[in-house]
Parts: sequence; structure tokens; C-alpha cells
Amino acid sequence: MPELKRLAINQATTRTQWSLRQAIEGYARHGVKGIAVWRDKLAECGVAEAAGMLNDHAMTVTGLCRGGMFPAADGPGIQAALDDNRRAIDDAAAIGAQCLVLVVGGLPKISRDIAGARAMVRDGIAAILPHARGANMPLAIEPLHPMYAADRACVNTMAQANDLCDELGDGLGIAVDVYHLWWDPDLEKQIARAGKKRILGFHICDWLVPTRDMLLDRGMMGDGVIDIARIRGWVEDAGYDGYHEVEIFSQENWWKRDPDEVVGTCIERHRTVC
Amino acid sequence: MPELKRLAINQATTRTQWSLRQAIEGYARHGVKGIAVWRDKLAECGVAEAAGMLNDHAMTVTGLCRGGMFPAADGPGIQAALDDNRRAIDDAAAIGAQCLVLVVGGLPKISRDIAGARAMVRDGIAAILPHARGANMPLAIEPLHPMYAADRACVNTMAQANDLCDELGDGLGIAVDVYHLWWDPDLEKQIARAGKKRILGFHICDWLVPTRDMLLDRGMMGDGVIDIARIRGWVEDAGYDGYHEVEIFSQENWWKRDPDEVVGTCIERHRTVC
Repeated sequence: MPELKRLAINQATTRTQWSLRQAIEGYARHGVKGIAVWRDKLAECGVAEAAGMLNDHAMTVTGLCRGGMFPAADGPGIQAALDDNRRAIDDAAAIGAQCLVLVVGGLPKISRDIAGARAMVRDGIAAILPHARGANMPLAIEPLHPMYAADRACVNTMAQANDLCDELGDGLGIAVDVYHLWWDPDLEKQIARAGKKRILGFHICDWLVPTRDMLLDRGMMGDGVIDIARIRGWVEDAGYDGYHEVEIFSQENWWKRDPDEVVGTCIERHRTVC
Repeated sequence: MPELKRLAINQATTRTQWSLRQAIEGYARHGVKGIAVWRDKLAECGVAEAAGMLNDHAMTVTGLCRGGMFPAADGPGIQAALDDNRRAIDDAAAIGAQCLVLVVGGLPKISRDIAGARAMVRDGIAAILPHARGANMPLAIEPLHPMYAADRACVNTMAQANDLCDELGDGLGIAVDVYHLWWDPDLEKQIARAGKKRILGFHICDWLVPTRDMLLDRGMMGDGVIDIARIRGWVEDAGYDGYHEVEIFSQENWWKRDPDEVVGTCIERHRTVC
């Protein structure tokens, strides 16, 4: 049975209901010790004030969401992405995040060259890695489900993420999200390959049947078909001992509920089904 | 430039507009020489009458859609699926189809055991293969996009399909559908691994950005992000010299148009972008 002290909540889970201040206070009120922060919410609050509040509540920041989005149609677009990623690294360091999560980006506009987009991702990560290492801020590639390959992330499997880590070296790891990866027949093997050092996060939610929206219909743990406990076992067998971070985008359900009910349900389901 | 004589149309592309008779006559009127047939439309028409019409129009039947759906929650459910697959094999043989397409099925009801579902698929195919071999009817596993892993098909990559073919032997092959597989970084290698003998079909359409429905929003070739010509090159390099079968589920667009316009557009796009 997972312990409450292992539970973190990604503030996207209460994004429509709570500001960053409200999320920090709300999660802390329920005894949750970890939070993943989104940049838009951080910008509303201001980095200095956020850092103070996180410290006041002894909150561990499991990650800042997000950097990435490297592929672009032209040089200025690529440069703008790199500049933005360096700012994200600095913000992640300023709030003491355990990592900067990278949603790497999909195809540049009007492109059909997914191999080319993947090369742009590799080159983009390579370009910001020195800055990340200088800031002592690990970068966590989050492989996204293949249904996002065109428009959000062309890194879609743990195998690809592991290959990038092999190629680019220290300072780079992987965020393992069960929603994106549960279907992959190679998952157990690739989690073992990643090992303790590379696994920088473990994100949980559930895959609903039916899924009514490709982006905003993720389920609460236990309401779908993912064997979360099994995948947790694999990451723990690999040596991972960090937080279990609930991240639920749910426009028609959880985003419409009382946020205290949402947090309470996260805690209960984490205990009973994860 | 692909030739018209290589073009087939899966009748799902005009499923809301045309019966099987109308589809055969309509495709033939436009000079299309190949058709993939669906079982519900075949049942409406009757196998004997369909076989006669197909013969009268010298139509090649690139496949019968579909067998599969092997995983079930109990023994009677599994047996019913096997019986249904044997009937599908007989019907495919009666209309002279080049293969029976298998959409293998997802998780049984209330299950979270995807590895178990995959074992059920292997066992189900093994159970019907003798009947298929006796009928001289190749079975074509169609790996579906991972977004269908829970509810339609837990075989989601060419690698899995190749592994099944390795294990189960003669009479089994693969239908390569660009919609399901375009994102896979391993695709080129796995198509080469499959080779001429295993590639029993090549299905084309396009991935739209955004995709508004997970099932019924496929795009016409050229309207999305898939580099179809590149993937066609890979299957041809592997020795495939069969039809290019257009299969478009499109509730809000192509299924609402004049079917002659749909067929005309398939022909034009096949010539210009595939």
C-alpha cells in the first residue's frame, strides 16, 4: 500500500479551481507533501512569492511543467524555443523543483517529417543541457502517448527516451506517466533499462473506456483500465523511490468538482488502487 | 506515381452512403479495381449475390473486415469469438478475398491485464489458424494505434504482429495501415522484417491535426501529417506489390459527401500524394 508521504499532486489536477497559492495550501491541508507546478500558474503568482509559499508549507516540488516544444519551422522559432527552455530551467531552479518536465513537441507546422522532428528534439535538448547542468536542474523527457505524436510530442515510448538519454548523457532523465505508456509491450523492459538514475518522476491517472476527448478526459486512478500498481512495481524494482504524482486533465468531470473532494479522492485512490 | 490499377477502396470509406452493391458498382464506374468488404454489408447483401457481383465487375477483394476480437471474460465468450472467426474465414473464402483482416480485440470487460489479453489473442489466432489454412485464407493481423489498446486491439505495433507471425507460422500475415503505425520509430525496420510474404495489405488515409474524434475522424490522403509515400516506399522495398487500400472513417466530413465525389477524391489524392 503506497504511503501518503509518497503522494504528490500535479496542479493541473485542480487547474480550473485553484491558483498556485490555493493549490499549495489546499494540498498541504490534506497532508499532501508534493506538488508539480505549471508555468502559467507560476507566472500569475510570481517566482519569489511561490518559492516562499512552497518553503513555508515544506512542499516538495516534484517538477515544473513544462519545457520542450523544440521543433519549429524556422531558425528564429527554434531559437525562441531554446530561450524559453532556459528561462524554464531558471524558474525550476528558483522554486527548487526536482526536475523540469519536457514535453518535447510534435511536427513543425506543415511538416510530415517525423524523423526530422525527432532530430530537432535531440538537437534542442542537447542545446539546453549545458544550461540545465549549470543550474543543477535535471531535465525529464516525458514520452507522450502516440496519439500526441503530431502535435505535442514525437517522443512516444520509453525506448526513444532511453535512446536520447544514452546519446546525450548526464542531466537528462525520464518522467514515466502510466497514461502515456501503459499500452507499450516493451514497458517493463524499458523501465528496467532506465533504472533508478534516469527515472525522475512517476505520474499516475487512469485510461477511461471510452475516452471522450483525446486531451482532457483522463480518469482518476481506479476508474479505468491501467494496472497502476503493476507499473509502480516495475519503477520501484528499477530503484525509483520518489513521489507518485497524480496528473489528471478532466474537463467534464474532476475539473468541475469541489477541489477538496478531488484531493480527497486522489488520496483515497492512491492508497487503495495504486 | 502510384497507378490507378493499384488503388482499392475499403467500403467503410462510403459506408453511410452506399450498400455493397452500390459500392461495387460505384467504385467500378470510376475504374477502381479493388474493394475491401465489411461483414455487415456482406450480410445485408448475401454472400452468393455478393460473390456474383464482385465477379461480374472483375473486382479484386483486398480483404474482408473483420475477424478478431478474441479476448473475452469467460470460456463461452472465447468460444463464441472462435466460432465467429471461422464463419468469417468461410465468408472471406466465398467472396475470394485476399485475406481476412483481424482486429484482435482489447481488454476483456473489467480487466486491467493487457498482457493477459495479448495471450488470449495469440491463443485465439492459433485456434483458428488450422481452419484458415484449410480454407486457404490468409489471416492479416492489423496492428491498431495504441489509443485503441483498451477497447479494440491490444496488438499495437508491427513488432508485436511480427512476433506473433514468428510464433504461429504460415497462414498469418499483417495489414499495414499508415493511420495506426505512422508514429512508430521502429516502423521502417519492422516493415523490412515482415517482408513480402507477410505484408497482406497496405491501408492508407491520413492523420488530421487536430483529430476531433478518436474513431471517426480520419483524413483523406494529403489532408494530414502522414508521409504516405515514404511508408509506401518501405513496403515496396520489402517486396509488397499489392493494392493501396483507402480506408477512411469520417463521420463529419467524407461520410456526409456525395460518394462519387469521395471516390473521385480518393483517386486524385492516391495519384498525387501517395
